[in-house]
Amino acid sequence: MKKLIPLASLALLMQSTVAPPVLAQASAAIAAGRAAPSPLAPSEIVAAAPAGDWTPIAAADLLVMTLAPDAKGAARRVVIQLMPPPLSQGWVGNIRKLAAAHWWDGLSVNRVQDNYVAQWGDANAEEKAKARALPSGLAVVPESEYYGFSPMEVFYTIRTLKTPSAVRTKDAYAPVSSFVRGWPVGINDGGYRFRGKVPRRVVADPPPAPAIWPVHCYGMVGVGRDLSPNTGSGAELYTVIGHAPRHLDRNIALVGRVIEGIEHLSSLPRGTEALGFYNTAAERTPIVSIRLGVEVADLPRYEYLSTESGSFAKYADARANRRDAFFIRPAGGADICNIPVPVRRVK
Amino acid sequence: MKKLIPLASLALLMQSTVAPPVLAQASAAIAAGRAAPSPLAPSEIVAAAPAGDWTPIAAADLLVMTLAPDAKGAARRVVIQLMPPPLSQGWVGNIRKLAAAHWWDGLSVNRVQDNYVAQWGDANAEEKAKARALPSGLAVVPESEYYGFSPMEVFYTIRTLKTPSAVRTKDAYAPVSSFVRGWPVGINDGGYRFRGKVPRRVVADPPPAPAIWPVHCYGMVGVGRDLSPNTGSGAELYTVIGHAPRHLDRNIALVGRVIEGIEHLSSLPRGTEALGFYNTAAERTPIVSIRLGVEVADLPRYEYLSTESGSFAKYADARANRRDAFFIRPAGGADICNIPVPVRRVK
Repeated sequence: MKKLIPLASLALLMQSTVAPPVLAQASAAIAAGRAAPSPLAPSEIVAAAPAGDWTPIAAADLLVMTLAPDAKGAARRVVIQLMPPPLSQGWVGNIRKLAAAHWWDGLSVNRVQDNYVAQWGDANAEEKAKARALPSGLAVVPESEYYGFSPMEVFYTIRTLKTPSAVRTKDAYAPVSSFVRGWPVGINDGGYRFRGKVPRRVVADPPPAPAIWPVHCYGMVGVGRDLSPNTGSGAELYTVIGHAPRHLDRNIALVGRVIEGIEHLSSLPRGTEALGFYNTAAERTPIVSIRLGVEVADLPRYEYLSTESGSFAKYADARANRRDAFFIRPAGGADICNIPVPVRRVK
Repeated sequence: MKKLIPLASLALLMQSTVAPPVLAQASAAIAAGRAAPSPLAPSEIVAAAPAGDWTPIAAADLLVMTLAPDAKGAARRVVIQLMPPPLSQGWVGNIRKLAAAHWWDGLSVNRVQDNYVAQWGDANAEEKAKARALPSGLAVVPESEYYGFSPMEVFYTIRTLKTPSAVRTKDAYAPVSSFVRGWPVGINDGGYRFRGKVPRRVVADPPPAPAIWPVHCYGMVGVGRDLSPNTGSGAELYTVIGHAPRHLDRNIALVGRVIEGIEHLSSLPRGTEALGFYNTAAERTPIVSIRLGVEVADLPRYEYLSTESGSFAKYADARANRRDAFFIRPAGGADICNIPVPVRRVK
């Protein structure tokens, strides 16, 4: 009996360097000078991207969470990339302060809800007597910061989008979805369209406000909050470990994404209480430390495939239209969250 | 400091009976005869659905997988609902034969790839000398069975859809997405539209073939296969444990969904080899048995919320437009895979 071929795929966020068996054969054929039997898979497009299409991630923009070792004593490190300006900078500033104060050290992962989120912070936050005090000087961030770009930035960003239209317009949660400066976003163009270089409003009044906002894909990191108008400080964080809960977009702040080690959160036992909270303190996973990348001596350097590059446009198109050997029928489109931005360690 | 309210959510597939704290207060206000401070959450709509809106699931349509106990000795049972006619019946028939022959007993979960799939079957399938022989009489299923409905069934199904239009038409992977007989599906109407009771073709030739096909949402169970035209026998199965890999729709057979115990698969350690295969046999999770529900004496009875019911339509609308207290801004739409069909144990 022949082997059942495993489902071809990218490892999310981190780019797998190992192609599935069928594609490895195809690459060998190309190397031997024979005609390619099949178009490139998304992973092959990424592997072939020129160095200039990759953007370094500064250590200052990384958050490194060290969990207690697992049951077998293996280390568990989760690396998070914080969002760049103009996105979510109020909360990102708070998170930098919390990390610099070593505020999370000794706290824990308190909630893991299947197909939803893993959440960490102070398990005693609601009991004043037991709660850990927050550092002074944290910003109270207004809801307007759920949107980061000015209207003119929105217009000019839309003009430069390289994402295939098959990705942009069939999104149940945003008029347009695409990638901006390395991040998946929803876009509302405010009813303006470009005629040459001049934006003109083409929809009836009252038009929606032009806006760009980050979206809840797998691995994205967000800020737990109380009821509106509270927006959270950034002390209570979660990451998405299931199908993208896009209904949270524009309702909760997103501040970053896990770029390495998400399996240390996604494979944790699910909490058995309501919403996936653990029943006992013993079930929680202790956080040894959370540090800004600049404080971590042995941190590798990382880079992401620029979402404004030609390689990314080809990669997104290949994700929307799989033509490699395993596939019979290309989809003709892709969900924004099915096009994870490739991130890798710098070689 | 006030407690940071956990993110309100449904537990996927299995309906959580515990509303988030804020909603519990709202329910108390309703019970006390005061005005409701907030519209019903999706979970509250489901809880209020009349008995007649629930459809029993026959034990004959269930597959019960018992994994070896976990490290603490706790039992691990995964319950899978098989698809009804006319969907995927060639593979479903094979799976019934494999289960009746106790074919999977002593095999294992061999692959867990983060944000993608957990896969089980014969780890030695590719080595003839070691591979377990398949039972005789398994069907060789043609690719045409990726689609189950006749064109006339497609037309009349479209006429009776109750899913809100905000869900139906903004799908990157299908012209229309909705629910049919309890399952999430993609639909191509073949360019026909109804004028009264008569379907008329309104698009230019050549029109696409009218078709309905099941889609790869979280928890769906599919059939591993070799390269086309192979479609797999059903002996090698996987379930989705991450963001819906919808590019697999119409490329691989789907045969069912996990309705209970998916956390026993989704929280397994990720394999460290290519595609999430385990490096050593010791890392695999042994399968004690897989049985049809009719062979399992202590199996609870289950039911799902009929996707043709009024309660389901309200639930889907509430998933697309969250108006409960936590939310500031309803999305105005929803991804088909963000509307898990509620399934519960019969009380």
